Amino acid sequence: MREIGLKEIEDIALGAALLGAGGGGDPYIGKLVALGAVRECGPVKLLSPEEVADDALIAPIAMMGAPTILCEKGIGGTEYQTLYDTMSQFFGRKIDAFMPMEAGGVNSMLPIAAAARLGLPLVDVDGMGRAFPELQMVTFTMGGISATPMALTDEKGNNVIFRTITNKWTEELARAVTMSCGGSVSVSLYPMNGAQMKQYGVHGIVTKSEELGAAIRRIKECTEGTPEENFLKFTDGIFIFKGKISDVLRETRGAFNFGKVVLSGIQECRGKEAVVTFQNENLCAEVDGEILGTVPDLICLVDAETFTPVPTDALKYGKRVLVVGLPCYHSWRSEAGLELVGPKYFGIDTEYIPIEIRAAGAKNAGQEVQINV
Amino acid sequence: MREIGLKEIEDIALGAALLGAGGGGDPYIGKLVALGAVRECGPVKLLSPEEVADDALIAPIAMMGAPTILCEKGIGGTEYQTLYDTMSQFFGRKIDAFMPMEAGGVNSMLPIAAAARLGLPLVDVDGMGRAFPELQMVTFTMGGISATPMALTDEKGNNVIFRTITNKWTEELARAVTMSCGGSVSVSLYPMNGAQMKQYGVHGIVTKSEELGAAIRRIKECTEGTPEENFLKFTDGIFIFKGKISDVLRETRGAFNFGKVVLSGIQECRGKEAVVTFQNENLCAEVDGEILGTVPDLICLVDAETFTPVPTDALKYGKRVLVVGLPCYHSWRSEAGLELVGPKYFGIDTEYIPIEIRAAGAKNAGQEVQINV
Repeated sequence: MREIGLKEIEDIALGAALLGAGGGGDPYIGKLVALGAVRECGPVKLLSPEEVADDALIAPIAMMGAPTILCEKGIGGTEYQTLYDTMSQFFGRKIDAFMPMEAGGVNSMLPIAAAARLGLPLVDVDGMGRAFPELQMVTFTMGGISATPMALTDEKGNNVIFRTITNKWTEELARAVTMSCGGSVSVSLYPMNGAQMKQYGVHGIVTKSEELGAAIRRIKECTEGTPEENFLKFTDGIFIFKGKISDVLRETRGAFNFGKVVLSGIQECRGKEAVVTFQNENLCAEVDGEILGTVPDLICLVDAETFTPVPTDALKYGKRVLVVGLPCYHSWRSEAGLELVGPKYFGIDTEYIPIEIRAAGAKNAGQEVQINV
Repeated sequence: MREIGLKEIEDIALGAALLGAGGGGDPYIGKLVALGAVRECGPVKLLSPEEVADDALIAPIAMMGAPTILCEKGIGGTEYQTLYDTMSQFFGRKIDAFMPMEAGGVNSMLPIAAAARLGLPLVDVDGMGRAFPELQMVTFTMGGISATPMALTDEKGNNVIFRTITNKWTEELARAVTMSCGGSVSVSLYPMNGAQMKQYGVHGIVTKSEELGAAIRRIKECTEGTPEENFLKFTDGIFIFKGKISDVLRETRGAFNFGKVVLSGIQECRGKEAVVTFQNENLCAEVDGEILGTVPDLICLVDAETFTPVPTDALKYGKRVLVVGLPCYHSWRSEAGLELVGPKYFGIDTEYIPIEIRAAGAKNAGQEVQINV
């Protein structure tokens, strides 16, 4: 058990935004919500999964919808309480702890805010080890855990409980309600006991986010190596591309942000042009027509100077960014994992090849291009 | 208290289909469901509203969605039990009786089937005195009664509970889920106590449906007057038009059947052409460009020979029909009523004028047309 205070929140928000892989919401908005709650109600107890009793009732808390809408609509004051009450009423007992569903700028922060405001501990675990756009895309689905009962509430006070036959149906029905509520809502789903959380969750994700955030912040202080080298070293990142954003196509459809960003290579960059497609999160990175990385591996865009992550809703013409790959949580590379979140699920017509292999192969291809230029 | 058996169901289905004003679903499908349940589980106790205790818990049962889809998807076996369980669990007590939400071919029959299968009584009351397409369009909304908690279930086993800030929001969110579930679902909403039911409900609607059905069936036995005269006399109907269907435009959108039917006048008919527009239910009848009736009054199409009601999903080219107007339940003519279900709500750019006045005015207009021809 340790405490999450103001300093920890700064680091967790920064690191989680990187793990958000373009999605998970604006880290600035998320941070403000968590900082506000902790300033008002005091720090949050962070429990490691092992510290949680097997029969404890754990409820994840998250925002659902298009990140661009989330930033505009904001988060009201009573959603956590409503979700807590709904879940507690359903189970006829109180929730023992909250947990995040995914790592991301907003969705790592809301559970902290909820825990602070309701005086509950937070568990250092999530169901993705990154962010994904759809509800069923969690390790818990692979473990056969139901997403329902799921509680959904909007900032106006509408409140819905779902019980569905599959987690894909939860996504389907909750997405329809999210759209009708204006495109972004607060949810609690995958309520589970401590034993299930320990068996199927991605352990230590809050701590990992914090360490990543602290490392990114430390880059400026390093005296050895270039900042870029240090960023890749600290994050175990795989260099994919460095370029200037020359085009952004973004469409809000079905309570998702769909689109792609086009980058023109600069300086020492491998290749001339890169294209990164996204559905809330970045899905696929191509350099000069060759795929260098796909889901479920993380494709992260960070500011080329400050190394702060750039979520898909903050992509802007002219911004210089580094495209970096991070290997995903190991379970996602299993057959069951790839069925849920592999490239084919997202309509990308390619087999999944781990990013460390794709990027290595491309390094040579990239060098050839440079020779030709 | 009296019993609803097989014979009563036949008459109620026929009469309710007339009150469905084109909507409320296919009376044949509805009848089969109710007859099946009563054959298997025995007759249903029908209570008059006055026989219900003020503190009894009453739950309406209905299908929601596009009537055309409802006919194809059918109704599974476990929906009533699921709705009953969900509502009972929510209130922490058992439901004392079911009631219909509206009069219509299917929605008058399902509560009978549910009552038969679960051994509960049915109350002789509804919230419309006819059928309307949207959830908030009930007398209970005028009485300030909330549509929620509302339980929704599909034939696959998905199950949703709504609690919303207004009845219009219930419609909004439940409609979105209905669409995602394939366009038609089973619902229970406006749970209320006996006192509320008595104060705001349309009393005696099941009996009225039965009497109308029996009257339509008796037409053939009459020796005095033409069948058409007798139909109008028995139903207190206002003659609007008689014609052959020359065109049907139908579109399933937003889990509604939208469209219009065009009729060419035959024989003794007033006017040359009539157009009836609908959203599940018939909304407006025009003869030679003049509006002769609008919601909330009932515009009913019946077979010109047999006088069986023709719902909007059964409109077919070549069919000869009588268009008949019936005055709506008096509360719908109040300011609050017209705000909920008046012509303007449905995008019909006219003031509401009671159908008995419109049709009388048009009678003269119609005669003029005949002179010209």
